[in-house]
Order: sequence, then C-alpha cells, then structure tokens
Amino acid sequence: MNPPDAFATATGVRPDGDGGWSASVAEGWDILGNANGGYLLAIAARAMAGAAGRPDPVTVTAHYLSPGRPGPVTARTEVVKQGRRFATVQARLDADRPLLALVGTFGELEPSGGAGLYVEGAPPELPDPDDCEWHEGASAAAGAPSFMDRVELRLHPDDAGFRTGDPSGTPRVRGWFRLPGGEPVDTIGLLQAVDAFPPTVFNARFPVAWTPTVELTAHLRARPAPGWLACAFSTRFVTGGFLEADGEVWDSTGTLVAQSRQLALVPRDPTP
Amino acid sequence: MNPPDAFATATGVRPDGDGGWSASVAEGWDILGNANGGYLLAIAARAMAGAAGRPDPVTVTAHYLSPGRPGPVTARTEVVKQGRRFATVQARLDADRPLLALVGTFGELEPSGGAGLYVEGAPPELPDPDDCEWHEGASAAAGAPSFMDRVELRLHPDDAGFRTGDPSGTPRVRGWFRLPGGEPVDTIGLLQAVDAFPPTVFNARFPVAWTPTVELTAHLRARPAPGWLACAFSTRFVTGGFLEADGEVWDSTGTLVAQSRQLALVPRDPTP
Repeated sequence: MNPPDAFATATGVRPDGDGGWSASVAEGWDILGNANGGYLLAIAARAMAGAAGRPDPVTVTAHYLSPGRPGPVTARTEVVKQGRRFATVQARLDADRPLLALVGTFGELEPSGGAGLYVEGAPPELPDPDDCEWHEGASAAAGAPSFMDRVELRLHPDDAGFRTGDPSGTPRVRGWFRLPGGEPVDTIGLLQAVDAFPPTVFNARFPVAWTPTVELTAHLRARPAPGWLACAFSTRFVTGGFLEADGEVWDSTGTLVAQSRQLALVPRDPTP
Repeated sequence: MNPPDAFATATGVRPDGDGGWSASVAEGWDILGNANGGYLLAIAARAMAGAAGRPDPVTVTAHYLSPGRPGPVTARTEVVKQGRRFATVQARLDADRPLLALVGTFGELEPSGGAGLYVEGAPPELPDPDDCEWHEGASAAAGAPSFMDRVELRLHPDDAGFRTGDPSGTPRVRGWFRLPGGEPVDTIGLLQAVDAFPPTVFNARFPVAWTPTVELTAHLRARPAPGWLACAFSTRFVTGGFLEADGEVWDSTGTLVAQSRQLALVPRDPTP
C-alpha cells in the first residue's frame, strides 16, 4: 500500500462513468500555491491511460490553461482511435475552470535496456547523488509544505549556482530524480520527472522570475529500470517572448527513457 | 486570387456551423497516395485558428491516426479556453475515419527580426538554392502528380546522397523551403515547412523504408519574412521502435521562426 503522500496515491483517478474521472490535487505538490505542471500532467495521463486501456503514455501533450490548486479535479477523456498497438485520447482536466487540454497516444512500452539502432547522445555526466546539491525549492524556503518533499532532486553542483545568486550563465539544469521511500517510477512517473526541476533560465544571466508553461510534450521510449534517473534540461532559444526547454531522462541502465520539450512564456520586456 | 493548386487554396476551410469546418484534401499533396502530414496539419490548423479567432498557431500538436486521401474532410473544433493573449483549441480532422487528433494554442505572433534574449544556434549553412539539389520525390519518379510540384525544396548536396544510394550516414536533412509562384508563407505555411522534407533516416546507414509519424508538435516564434526558409531536421535517437526528428526553420532575416519535433515509428526488427 502506498502512503497517502506517495506519487501513485496523489495522482490516483477514479472512473465516474461516461468518460469522466475524479481526482484530487493533493496538498504539497505545489510551488508557492500552484500545483506542479508535471504532477497535473500525471493525473490527467492516468485518466487517459485508463480510458485507452493501455498502461504507457507513448507521447502526450498538455496545454496549461490555469494554475491548479489543491482540491477536487475532473478529467474528461475521449478515445479518438483504438488501434492495434496504440490508442489516442483527447482529454481535459478541469477544476472550477479548465486547467489542462491534452492529447496523447498510449500503448505498451518495452522495458529499458534494448540496444538502439542509433544513439547520438549520452546520459549527463553527474556526480554521485550524495555529491550533488539538494534542492528544497521556494516553498521550503517560505516554510510551507514542499513539492521537494514529494520528489527527490539532486542538482549538478555546476547548475545549482542560481540558488545563491551565482547562475552559471548557461540555461541548463542537470540532476538526479527519484520518488521518496523507494516508490518505483513508472511511465506516468516519468511525466513527473520531465517537469520537476527548476527552470533552465534560472541559470541564465538575464532576469526571469517566472516562466509559465504554455505547452509540454513528452515522448516515452521505454519503461524505466529501478534507481535514480539522470535528467538534463536545456534551453537554446529565448526569442519572441517564448523559450523552449528540452529534457532528456536516462535510467540506471543508461537507456534514454523520455524526451520532453516545453514552450514557456518569458516576460516580453525584462528590465536588464 | 490564388491559383487552385496554391497552398492557401488547397488548405482552405469553410465553417459549416456548430464547430465544424469543411475542407478537401486536394490532389497532388500526397506521397504515393498518402497526403503529406504537414499539409493535413495545415488544414486542421486553419480550422483551429478560425475557431480561436486568432491568426497564428503558437504551438500545435497533431497525432496521426490514419493516412489521408484526396477528397472531403471535416474538422471539428472546440475552444477550451479563450484568454487575453491566447486561445486553446482541441480538434479532430476526419474523413470516413479519424485522421488527426489535435490540440493547439493560437495568438498573434510578432514579425520576425527581433533580437532574442538568448540564441544558442544559427541557421544551417546551406549553399545558394541554385547550388542545392532539387528534390522531386517518389511520386514524380512514379510519374504521378507530385507533392514536390506543390512545395519547392532544395536539399543540401551533402544530405541528398540517399537519392542515389549513398546516404551520408548522419540522419539529418537540411535545405531550403518555399511555396511556388511567390506565394507567401504565413504561420500556417510554416506547419507545412516542418513536415515537407524527406525523412532524416533516409540518410542513416540502416534500412528504414518508411517512418509513419505518430505525433508532430510545432512551436512558432515569429511571422516569417518573405523569401526562402532555411530548414534543418535531425534525429538523435532511434530506440525502442521509435525515432524523434527535430526541426528548425529560419527565415531570410536569420530569425528562428519555428521549431518542430515529431515522433515516428521505426520497424521493430529491421533486417540489417
């Protein structure tokens, strides 16, 4: 049985018939009052996987419409196509207003560890988790229950300078991810991993206080093996009032298990 | 007035009330009988932009469910949120069966040319279009009306070797894109540009005959300036039966106007 604050419990959904699913945004999965985006995505994806009758999100996209607060939410799902290998589902996650609009394709992924036909890349080089920086986040600093009690992050020391006013100058964040208490990370958990780290631009040398996510897409390639996940997020273009953040998640076998990209808003005229 | 085979005409949609839009998959926008994916995306996005009351797709995702054939199609749209700057729309494109499931956020993008806050990248280095390789595609080789009469592509000579059985070994395709007859490329046209080139893996040294797209997401950053668009597509991971293809589109002012990523299926056990 999972403890009440476990990820599996906190992202659980109950079918209420007719394509609807009830869930709750649990306490403590927020950053200063706004529920984490990966957490909301995971709730919606559980409902979509249920509707699809398939366990694994192969690719899922969420558009973020309003911040989520603790309390009841409803997911509505529609299976657009039920195919041989995959099912494609459109969905919404609503509270008193729409939170997320989604589309995803679900199926059954292989376990990690298979040799790729072509791999141009490698897991980020990270010090051992014990030699990385803990990240408690802004909520903990404010004395509130913290999202950083819900997931375990260890930041690469080179990417942790923003916490002490010394950003690296490169909009990149690398680190380890796992769930507390040895809770396994399944493919729904990977959706949490791709949106759990501090924003890449915290390490840039221009002032960006907040970058609300417009859209996040995750591609999952395999079911992750047990253990820490090595994660890397980077931004190459902050233009036109937007930025993208590209993520890679590698498991303990050295297999790429997820890629992600999000589009976020950047204040149009930040004061230098 | 646009000629009947112009992109704007061939992707036109007519509202039929109640969130429905009528359109046609025109002749000649196919590769060996299957309508090009960017073309279908553009039709759906025109309907979504119409429903949003906003001209520009900021980010749009399509899941590809069945191949499109010439003939009538219907788009159904639902505006999930109409906000101050953006509207988010869910949509489907259907023929006698579902073709695409989509979600997109629409707004009004700036003209290209603004300085970015951070730009880590540059347009691909391409020879002049006249010194690049024409690409007629498989339909022309088969004597059929060709998608390559509908769009103009010029391939980087280094990336055109697959056409003569001499792939570069790097799953990358770079080249120029424009519409024929001087037709301007608007932001809907950018959705065509991100899925018009031959597959990246045609330049890999493993046998892949066909890579059906599961999902394509495009992020648009600015309205493109007139002229050729410099495009680059590359694949880093062919694993787990899937590959991603990442695209960048730069306009004649040297501005990044679009990023794209698609997830495609790869035959599970290709014979070496």
